[in-house]
Amino acid sequence: MDRRSFIKGASVAGAAVAATAAANLPAPALAQGKRELKMVTTWPKNFPGLGTGAQRVADRITKSSDGRITVKVFAAGELVPPFESFDAVSSGTADMYHAADYYWQGKSTAFNFFTAVPFGFLANELDAWVNFGGGQELWDELAGDFGLKSLMAGNTGVQWGGWLNKEINSVEDLKGLKFRMPGLGGEVLRKLGASVVALPGGEIFPALQSGAIDGTEWVGPWNDLAFGFYKVAKYYYWPGYHEPGSGLALGMSKKVWESFSPADQALVENAAAAENNYMYSEFNAKNSGALDTLINKHNVQTRRMPDDVMQAIGEASNDVMQGVANEGGIQKKIYDSFIAFRKQAIRMSKLSDQAYMQARLLPFKYGG
Amino acid sequence: MDRRSFIKGASVAGAAVAATAAANLPAPALAQGKRELKMVTTWPKNFPGLGTGAQRVADRITKSSDGRITVKVFAAGELVPPFESFDAVSSGTADMYHAADYYWQGKSTAFNFFTAVPFGFLANELDAWVNFGGGQELWDELAGDFGLKSLMAGNTGVQWGGWLNKEINSVEDLKGLKFRMPGLGGEVLRKLGASVVALPGGEIFPALQSGAIDGTEWVGPWNDLAFGFYKVAKYYYWPGYHEPGSGLALGMSKKVWESFSPADQALVENAAAAENNYMYSEFNAKNSGALDTLINKHNVQTRRMPDDVMQAIGEASNDVMQGVANEGGIQKKIYDSFIAFRKQAIRMSKLSDQAYMQARLLPFKYGG
Repeated sequence: MDRRSFIKGASVAGAAVAATAAANLPAPALAQGKRELKMVTTWPKNFPGLGTGAQRVADRITKSSDGRITVKVFAAGELVPPFESFDAVSSGTADMYHAADYYWQGKSTAFNFFTAVPFGFLANELDAWVNFGGGQELWDELAGDFGLKSLMAGNTGVQWGGWLNKEINSVEDLKGLKFRMPGLGGEVLRKLGASVVALPGGEIFPALQSGAIDGTEWVGPWNDLAFGFYKVAKYYYWPGYHEPGSGLALGMSKKVWESFSPADQALVENAAAAENNYMYSEFNAKNSGALDTLINKHNVQTRRMPDDVMQAIGEASNDVMQGVANEGGIQKKIYDSFIAFRKQAIRMSKLSDQAYMQARLLPFKYGG
Repeated sequence: MDRRSFIKGASVAGAAVAATAAANLPAPALAQGKRELKMVTTWPKNFPGLGTGAQRVADRITKSSDGRITVKVFAAGELVPPFESFDAVSSGTADMYHAADYYWQGKSTAFNFFTAVPFGFLANELDAWVNFGGGQELWDELAGDFGLKSLMAGNTGVQWGGWLNKEINSVEDLKGLKFRMPGLGGEVLRKLGASVVALPGGEIFPALQSGAIDGTEWVGPWNDLAFGFYKVAKYYYWPGYHEPGSGLALGMSKKVWESFSPADQALVENAAAAENNYMYSEFNAKNSGALDTLINKHNVQTRRMPDDVMQAIGEASNDVMQGVANEGGIQKKIYDSFIAFRKQAIRMSKLSDQAYMQARLLPFKYGG
């Protein structure tokens, strides 16, 4: 996925005015024992799954504290431009953000590990690593250097391979393929000879339609159906590999976090973890319904990415991730933790979840 | 899994005394604006994953309310015997329970759907169904008839096939197999000719050792390692099929639930959903570590259940589940909702999670 498109249309002038006004207010505002906190987000207002999830995190805090801590959500561009959310919280202009932490890879490439990396963790593995594999401590160290404290607060699940107007039958077919994919996933395809572009969301549909690009990834059936890609692309490829379970972060100012009582820290932790569970379940439910619509109503042709292509992409992913480790410092430290945990997780998933899903297909012949 | 064993050793006399004492107290007790609520559980105190998870649900409520709602946990047998937890909450002796709802299948077989059924939902699919597929509404209807309100508050993930001293190479090998498996999963094996027994936990190890049984299932690597089954069984079979993602319930007295303010309802909902996410991540992390120990330290031989055996088990599972539907009433209503949602979920998992896990094994050759 890529939400660079979300900047488009956001009122830059409006954002600048709002940011100035905010700077003149005490943050967090204190009035009659009540706190009002500002949450900036990288999502358009109520964008399905991500924007609605951010709003729910805020509402969970506001409701469960009976309004004692009221969190007001600012959609992308309302208070600051979306990609300034990190700096806004780091500097105190806002109190918290809801975003995908890999947007901050310009600050440190290590942030990628807390959203998703190619051939990385599934949602449940990411949670296991963060909660019980040392991930949260590493995240605290990384975010702490920027004056932030982050908690996991949402997940999209496995993103899909993408929409294509050319079939991919071999690794050769990737050479020269004009494909839209941002971030580390895009780097992987570039290594394999693809001509990778990073078009904003609004430009993808016409580019696919005119043939300016051969294909694009977006998120998964639910969000992709809404964009209407099935109208201008022949094939919907599975599985994805670039973002196998994208975690969304509630990133708070460390000062605000430390100003909370232990009770309020527990309340905020519960709100974040509850939404982490809930948003993931929403993506799972709505993706499976949308896939049904794509296949049965719009006659979309799903295509499986061939094994040799996936193997080549996996090996290129390793090279890209090794590049992150080679930066040294906390990047290397987090990479090492990630690699060790992934090794165990892959064996475990092979013998449990994956094996069960394979077995379940034997009596149930629902195809794709 | 089966926790009937947990009754063993619980002080029945002590429980009776405690129950009498509890009956003489107002429940929930009100003092200085503070509420004290009693949570009974079906788990031994701090039993890894399940007991510790129940304690964390209680602590999340207590902490995030700053002690305004204090939840005291009673391990199995401390206030009432474990399998009287349902009646204790239904009658008002306790305010809430933490348990696997399939323990109440004597009340209605429909309760099975909210824990796990053979060839049913994975953890993420169960959450998707409960939160966005009509599951919670059906659960409210079912539990409401007994004066209860239940929320999802934990998950064990995919349970394993079990420990065996005989290899299973064909469906024929199930005939006469002396295997310990409780509940609907046991019914499935019985249909295929196995001699199914339901030994309590403490009797499994000696029965395996003496050859009185050929095999047993328990939970997964983490809990199974602690029981030491690797010392008396040759093979550890994967995958499981009887409990692919066992949900744990926070079952509350409806009166207590309705006495909460909207703010406290939100607080309790967040606590339950947060633990739902957290416990699942704990099982995933600790199962993968324990599997590593079983294979590399104890040289356990893992074995894959053959496809034709899994297909036969899947078909027998369908028969068993059809039997539940044939009871009519709410059983049929919940079965129909389950079947419709599972159909979509199976296709979705085939094209997303499962396909990704398969592809991930291409560059990463970690075996089992």
